[in-house]
Amino acid sequence: MFNIKVFDGMTVESKLDTMLTMLEGLIQDEKDDLTNICNASALINALIGRNNWCGFYLIKNNELVLGPFQGMPACTRIEIGKGVCGTAALDRKTMIVADVHKFAGHIACDGATNSEIVIPIVKDDKLYGVLDLDSEEFNRFTNIEQEYLEKAVKILNKYVNWENVTC
Amino acid sequence: MFNIKVFDGMTVESKLDTMLTMLEGLIQDEKDDLTNICNASALINALIGRNNWCGFYLIKNNELVLGPFQGMPACTRIEIGKGVCGTAALDRKTMIVADVHKFAGHIACDGATNSEIVIPIVKDDKLYGVLDLDSEEFNRFTNIEQEYLEKAVKILNKYVNWENVTC
Repeated sequence: MFNIKVFDGMTVESKLDTMLTMLEGLIQDEKDDLTNICNASALINALIGRNNWCGFYLIKNNELVLGPFQGMPACTRIEIGKGVCGTAALDRKTMIVADVHKFAGHIACDGATNSEIVIPIVKDDKLYGVLDLDSEEFNRFTNIEQEYLEKAVKILNKYVNWENVTC
Repeated sequence: MFNIKVFDGMTVESKLDTMLTMLEGLIQDEKDDLTNICNASALINALIGRNNWCGFYLIKNNELVLGPFQGMPACTRIEIGKGVCGTAALDRKTMIVADVHKFAGHIACDGATNSEIVIPIVKDDKLYGVLDLDSEEFNRFTNIEQEYLEKAVKILNKYVNWENVTC
């Protein structure tokens, strides 16, 4: 049983430390890869806070295709190299965008979004997708979120067989 | 671009009529079945309102396995015949439970939940899973929600190849 209220009053770092511990606990004994990334998007969404969208775009036929997420209905396909997600995928590097409206080629799925962080998912040198978080706040995501979200993707890579969710 | 604010002030029925129209619009041109059920859970979650969870459990190896959802991290596996979801799946009939605490064998994924509606997903006489919605309100779901959610599942059945998300 999941109770978000236990995290009230924690510092950002201890909340994000807890997020990583809980993420590993949530997925390590479950063999269904889709289930694990659905639960991962919910856990990360709940623990990061001050965000309006959190989810995965998965590479299928060399395109980013919408996967499990928390938030409002979203754009279904993003070309690699286009927008913040596509750029993070192409460069295989985390992108932090303080003001998405100033990002050339930004793809607006939700007009309420003002800032974004995108972490590429690369395992054994193969790109499988991105983890994308949006916020209504400008400049919401810092190097703290980058550090913990990159660690979250490492935990996912340890347990998730991405081949099963990108076919 | 999705803007939930346009639904403010609508009657329940016109909001739910709009939900069905939007659901068909959202998924009819997208060929990825996983993408479509992810977006469907987000759309239904946004339009139903006064609920704390909305998502799919999918039949895999004769068990209900957690699929795309909106809400807090959830129980990953439910036996057919157990709990509200398992009973709706076994009987292939919509279940409305006004107070889940009074339902024998209720599986508590989120302690905040007090009422639930579960719609079985049956296509060509084969059971593929359930659409499950929870609410913190007692007695949240009525025959109005049942009618529209069953219509939503019919729209999903028209476009989604469930074999692709239950393998």
